[in-house]
Amino acid sequence: MGRTSDAREKIISTTQSLIELRGYSALGVAEICKTAGVPKGSFYYFFESKEALALTVLDEHWAAQRREWTRVLHGDAEPLQRLRQLFEETEATQRAGQKSCGTVSGCLFGNLTLELSNQTEAIRLCLQEIFDAQVGLVESVVAEARERGEVGVADTHEAARAVVAQLEGQVLLAKLYNNTSQLSVLWANCLALLGARIPQEAAAGA
Amino acid sequence: MGRTSDAREKIISTTQSLIELRGYSALGVAEICKTAGVPKGSFYYFFESKEALALTVLDEHWAAQRREWTRVLHGDAEPLQRLRQLFEETEATQRAGQKSCGTVSGCLFGNLTLELSNQTEAIRLCLQEIFDAQVGLVESVVAEARERGEVGVADTHEAARAVVAQLEGQVLLAKLYNNTSQLSVLWANCLALLGARIPQEAAAGA
Repeated sequence: MGRTSDAREKIISTTQSLIELRGYSALGVAEICKTAGVPKGSFYYFFESKEALALTVLDEHWAAQRREWTRVLHGDAEPLQRLRQLFEETEATQRAGQKSCGTVSGCLFGNLTLELSNQTEAIRLCLQEIFDAQVGLVESVVAEARERGEVGVADTHEAARAVVAQLEGQVLLAKLYNNTSQLSVLWANCLALLGARIPQEAAAGA
Repeated sequence: MGRTSDAREKIISTTQSLIELRGYSALGVAEICKTAGVPKGSFYYFFESKEALALTVLDEHWAAQRREWTRVLHGDAEPLQRLRQLFEETEATQRAGQKSCGTVSGCLFGNLTLELSNQTEAIRLCLQEIFDAQVGLVESVVAEARERGEVGVADTHEAARAVVAQLEGQVLLAKLYNNTSQLSVLWANCLALLGARIPQEAAAGA
């Protein structure tokens, strides 16, 4: 196949799948090339190192996820309903992943944060930018909800960070127990974290 | 040194430090033995495999952390204050780790959950037991607080899981940004998740 127009895409999508199954450190360039069906020369034509490839995988995965998050969080629904939709889509994505590969693979960004962020500065910075952007997207919705008097938070940035942290923490537990249904609590927990004015039955733990 | 009485302990503590710095997959038995100053024969005298060693590291780390959690959460302070103390100790532990090795290494259990739980069933089960126990310890305090009318949750188990998820999520972000001061929000977020009757200034995002 060699340096065909789709070799780069094959390497990237294969690497993302392999990272989701086995993490980053366990992978070698030879295995990536073999699984992608691409010669090693092609790999080094497109990527100067495994780390450069990991950065590209992160960038492309975030570009796709950012489109989804932006579509939902900048949508027409009322602000808190947009957050609800974000959690429902997260649950659906994790469920689809579990169906296709047998286990919940979790969040690629969270996985690589815990595996790698204290080892390589380039990956740490890339992941910081991604989480900054996630918090920013959530914060804009929280600020809208606050303007409407629907939430009671003083600091919208801290509140958005708490929502993203809760999301990462619950996805971690969903991966551990290989159980996506536990993600259904995200909405109620988000409302509780935001001090939302909500019906009793939606409160945390209800 | 060989099979001296402390070789086993040296292997375990070295492995824990190396996993905190570089994860599990990146480590080899030869490196562990070299860093611990123990011959390879000793390794296989005590552990039948690297996975068996990882399970021992998890067991011993949890035995130590469970003692701390039990001391704090079964202590004499009022229930919600015990949770506050747990978060303060978590922040202090992460800060001490950062001071000794230069970066926040995060939670060993969270790190290995995201790196390994969908790869080896033995490690998944071990980590599930640890998180079950953490949630159980937190739940007993939440139940006490509810009996005193201090929190408004309907399901104490779900509420405890939300608290542990928030803890893992915020420790993930502390590792990513190499910044432990972000952990100071845990108390306010916990109160919000529990629907606690609290002074306004302690609310989420305050």
